[in-house]
Amino acid sequence: MGTEVTSAAEISKPLLSAENAEEKIPPWKEQITVRGLLVSALLGSLFCIITHKLNLTVGVIPSLNVAAGLLGFFFVKSWTELASRIGLWSKPFTRQENTVIQTCVVACYGLAFSGGFGSYMLSMDQRTYELIGADYPGNRAEDVKNPSLGWMIGFMFVVSFLGLFSLVTLRKVMVIDYKLTYPSGTATALLINSFHTSTGAELAEKQVRCLGKYLSISFFWSCFKWFFSGVGDSCGFDNFPSLGLVAFKNTFYFDFSPTYVGCGLICPHIVNCSVLLGAIVSWGFLWPFISTKAGNWYPDNLGSSDFKGLYGYKVFIAISLILGDGLYNLIKIVIITVKEIVNARSKQTSLPLVVSPQDDASSHLLTEEKLREETFIKDSIPSWFAASGYIGLAAISTAVIPNIFPQMRWYLVLACYIVAPALAFCNSYGTGLTDWSLASTYGKIGLFIFASLIGSKGGVIAGLAACGVMMSIVSTAADLMQDFKTGYLTLSSPKSMFVSQLIGTALGCVIAPLTFWLYWTAFDIGSPDGVYKAPYAVIYREMAILGVEGFSALPEHCLELCCGFFVAALAINLLRDVTPTTVSKYIPIPMAMAVPFYIGAYFAIDMFVGTVILFVWEQLNKKEADDYAGAVASGLICGDGIWTVPSAILSIFRIDPPICMNFVPSS
Amino acid sequence: MGTEVTSAAEISKPLLSAENAEEKIPPWKEQITVRGLLVSALLGSLFCIITHKLNLTVGVIPSLNVAAGLLGFFFVKSWTELASRIGLWSKPFTRQENTVIQTCVVACYGLAFSGGFGSYMLSMDQRTYELIGADYPGNRAEDVKNPSLGWMIGFMFVVSFLGLFSLVTLRKVMVIDYKLTYPSGTATALLINSFHTSTGAELAEKQVRCLGKYLSISFFWSCFKWFFSGVGDSCGFDNFPSLGLVAFKNTFYFDFSPTYVGCGLICPHIVNCSVLLGAIVSWGFLWPFISTKAGNWYPDNLGSSDFKGLYGYKVFIAISLILGDGLYNLIKIVIITVKEIVNARSKQTSLPLVVSPQDDASSHLLTEEKLREETFIKDSIPSWFAASGYIGLAAISTAVIPNIFPQMRWYLVLACYIVAPALAFCNSYGTGLTDWSLASTYGKIGLFIFASLIGSKGGVIAGLAACGVMMSIVSTAADLMQDFKTGYLTLSSPKSMFVSQLIGTALGCVIAPLTFWLYWTAFDIGSPDGVYKAPYAVIYREMAILGVEGFSALPEHCLELCCGFFVAALAINLLRDVTPTTVSKYIPIPMAMAVPFYIGAYFAIDMFVGTVILFVWEQLNKKEADDYAGAVASGLICGDGIWTVPSAILSIFRIDPPICMNFVPSS
Repeated sequence: MGTEVTSAAEISKPLLSAENAEEKIPPWKEQITVRGLLVSALLGSLFCIITHKLNLTVGVIPSLNVAAGLLGFFFVKSWTELASRIGLWSKPFTRQENTVIQTCVVACYGLAFSGGFGSYMLSMDQRTYELIGADYPGNRAEDVKNPSLGWMIGFMFVVSFLGLFSLVTLRKVMVIDYKLTYPSGTATALLINSFHTSTGAELAEKQVRCLGKYLSISFFWSCFKWFFSGVGDSCGFDNFPSLGLVAFKNTFYFDFSPTYVGCGLICPHIVNCSVLLGAIVSWGFLWPFISTKAGNWYPDNLGSSDFKGLYGYKVFIAISLILGDGLYNLIKIVIITVKEIVNARSKQTSLPLVVSPQDDASSHLLTEEKLREETFIKDSIPSWFAASGYIGLAAISTAVIPNIFPQMRWYLVLACYIVAPALAFCNSYGTGLTDWSLASTYGKIGLFIFASLIGSKGGVIAGLAACGVMMSIVSTAADLMQDFKTGYLTLSSPKSMFVSQLIGTALGCVIAPLTFWLYWTAFDIGSPDGVYKAPYAVIYREMAILGVEGFSALPEHCLELCCGFFVAALAINLLRDVTPTTVSKYIPIPMAMAVPFYIGAYFAIDMFVGTVILFVWEQLNKKEADDYAGAVASGLICGDGIWTVPSAILSIFRIDPPICMNFVPSS
Repeated sequence: MGTEVTSAAEISKPLLSAENAEEKIPPWKEQITVRGLLVSALLGSLFCIITHKLNLTVGVIPSLNVAAGLLGFFFVKSWTELASRIGLWSKPFTRQENTVIQTCVVACYGLAFSGGFGSYMLSMDQRTYELIGADYPGNRAEDVKNPSLGWMIGFMFVVSFLGLFSLVTLRKVMVIDYKLTYPSGTATALLINSFHTSTGAELAEKQVRCLGKYLSISFFWSCFKWFFSGVGDSCGFDNFPSLGLVAFKNTFYFDFSPTYVGCGLICPHIVNCSVLLGAIVSWGFLWPFISTKAGNWYPDNLGSSDFKGLYGYKVFIAISLILGDGLYNLIKIVIITVKEIVNARSKQTSLPLVVSPQDDASSHLLTEEKLREETFIKDSIPSWFAASGYIGLAAISTAVIPNIFPQMRWYLVLACYIVAPALAFCNSYGTGLTDWSLASTYGKIGLFIFASLIGSKGGVIAGLAACGVMMSIVSTAADLMQDFKTGYLTLSSPKSMFVSQLIGTALGCVIAPLTFWLYWTAFDIGSPDGVYKAPYAVIYREMAILGVEGFSALPEHCLELCCGFFVAALAINLLRDVTPTTVSKYIPIPMAMAVPFYIGAYFAIDMFVGTVILFVWEQLNKKEADDYAGAVASGLICGDGIWTVPSAILSIFRIDPPICMNFVPSS
């Protein structure tokens, strides 16, 4: 799945690839089981909750694929063991079933991201409108559409399935002929394969125990923290000035959040360091510097979230970094893709540079590869089915979307669906090569094009909706192909994978809005001083306004700064590509740097703590770190995520934490 | 060494007893080295600081013998390795040298306990006098002697050496003939022996690494806590209402103190559970109940530290529990001792019931035992030297003490020194059998006898001074014999052990008062609301007043309650002895229960957390827990102890913590 920042983070360490070729491959219908669907729904809900939480707080989402595979394995395995212990017979747990579960879970929680609950959908609401201000040019009161379960679920249903049908016929080309790597998919497959060997199962059980341990620690810690978080904004561990009060004023503090420490453990070091560097550049230097210009560059007496003041600089500089990075990578990946396709055509063979990790020359492996290809081709999904599915869905969508967003004309929706398959192919291909899903970049391009096409009369909403349409197709298409790769390597039937994706998407269309609704009713979403800042809501709305209005509304010197950072993002990316790996691995990633610009430095500190822990761990015991860091991180993230549910319920029932822990200077 | 509570805790787990009989035993003078003395002084200071801290806060002191052995090994080993790496030649590190260091450190920090800095010596000061109140019968303004470096060091020098000389001639009888066990001494010897085998050294190094890790964690955590402890009494982690505000009001909270968690890890489960039970009985039920009688049993409007009110109940009930337990164990141990001696006389052989753990029947071990006995007898300390030493020191002491405490007549001091060797023998013998050093009980008996002998004109100071004299002799005599047992098992020369004890005692006479002075000048010692409550200061002074005045001053129903708890202490102890071990191991220890009565429940919570961690650890991995729990505990205790030094220095320079973290109800 694609995220704003950490697609690069979706590298799970490959485990043992031992495979057991003698085992019987169950027919595709048996790969989808009731227990599997139950577990998928459960994990899908959990991961939706976590994704929302991250989206609404900081917007950095690490990959939870490994956790999905691991927890799926754990639940079904415990189920079969329990059943056999009480004398019930149950079907043996195969790796195909495990893959199907994993696919279903990923499809489900993927919608929590591509549904835009933290980004385009939320930026249509009243609060974001008010945050930007009624007197802000281009920000019209008409362009407001508040979240509501009804239209959100409807919208999800009409946009989310198209991605699945758009590329399904190309799976043989991309997985077998082009042998695209899909690093995350491959890693997940290796993980699942490893679980279904005896030594792997042992390691998996240890990992599960480790995950469970940190999950409970994280859960109870979050629960403990809740009691001291009081009423109001200045209480509790979220406002712990752990680096001193001066640093706290500049948002530099460690807030004891297991989620972000877990993110730090799971993201590559360079992502964490980039985030910290971004925090230091922005909150350490740039904002304090711009603050000194108050009354000069911008009026002095503005509120902390007025776009005419410091807040405007924060948002627009973040936007320019994100756009610069996205644009660079888009162009780069398009160029690579075109080049590779041309190469492949001219040689009429598989891509020589893109070698699957399994591509060893041993004859045993060759036999295995043959078996894989056979399995992969056997349960075919007919092209007519895919094509008619896509056309039918596009027709429904074209009819429905203008009803949800009147600003979006039906012919524009149709235009989207005509271009979309090509973009979906680009993104799937790029993800296969680089593991970066650029779904949100394609979404932003759609946003700008449609916002400027429609102009000041409804362009904001239309742009945001178009963003949603594009993002959903492009993102799910890449996810699907990733999953096909996983299925290919675990000898799962493509049919069962496809059905599982369909079920997962249907689940996600319901679960993702419902879990979002939990947050929406329980917490103060979008308040710039609260915990749930929903940073991207403002950013997306501002981008749409920018598309409609141009740069006229920016505060003084902001455009210059934005251009500078935009160019810097391009330059840094170029530098990363032209320098040798020994140097480039120390060059920061601009998109990761952009996140703290708007949100604050505290989560950068948390993530840096995570990265330091991981670094020390790797120095002390590399193997242990490789085996368990993912489990620890997932445990920390999941435990905190689970606590969100009781805390939301408490909040809905207006039960306040009993104690306020606060911090005052001694003197 | 003997402590108020945790002599029972001085059970270090025996490690490998592998010995290397071929190694050459260095002559006694070579066992004492300059590097050894340096390390001893360093560790002695560290442990003095820790002992003071514990004495002045809660009064529970776990055994640090293992940490002394471990850190001594670590420092000298690193020294020799460093020296050999930079090309310097250094003497090889033998287990005899290690034993000598351990002995010296124990002698040194033992004085921090027997010097009474948290008990009898401190109870002479103005603050304790004021706490009890000028109008309290028997509490006279004349009976005040404030701490001062001069007289404290002088007093230490004249009383601390006598114990060493009193029993040195009996060492062959007690160690070889009676084969007394001395569990702590044996455990320390096994530890040291294990360090000096190759596998043992490896484990020791791992333990040292583990200790170092937790030492740094604990140090930095304490440092971190400091920043938030603000000014005044209600700030920081020491006032963290971790179990809620209601529980906090009754002193039930977890205060994140690594020291007490470490204590909990090192003390046996029953000690920790007893402490918690005592906390629940007193702060959970008894004090809230007595509070409801305010205005009825005692005047309503008293200060929180007025002896006529609740405070009086707290102190006197604690005293009666301590005295009941002490008396029971004294009588019990005297009976056992007399019985065993009579038995031994009648059989003219070694005690059959008291079997050294090394007493296996293999011939190899018999040869080894012979070697041990030869070594032990070879470097003899002449009887005339010991006798004349004792008489000379007693004469000096008799002349000097009346100058320090005019209330203490010279003939009374002399009387002390005539009785003392017999009591010292009793205590050494009892410690050898049971590992409980009852030094403080002997001290309290001296206190009561002398206080009532001298009466209202100076009886309080004289009693407290007599307590000091008795405690010093009885405590050091038991320590010495414990060390001789260690020396016997590590083939160390008794001469080097004796010299090392002398040096250690001399160091302790200077280091213990100096480190105490650090606390005295830096912190608000004895404030009932502060961290350094010095609980025993008030208890000892009250005991002395009780000796002088009788029970006339107690508040209403207090005497009945005290008698009840006194009898309960006797009964519980009796129950522990008459029931089978399967039951008795779950019966609490009254002396451990008494500690939180006066201090509060928070450290009981901390220690209970420690015991829970240990319990879970033991369930998960017994071997690992056995190997490392001591190191983790020592690390936690030492790290926190080391932080006391910078924190004291900051306090001396009046540098306040910058932030006050406080807790208020939300509503």
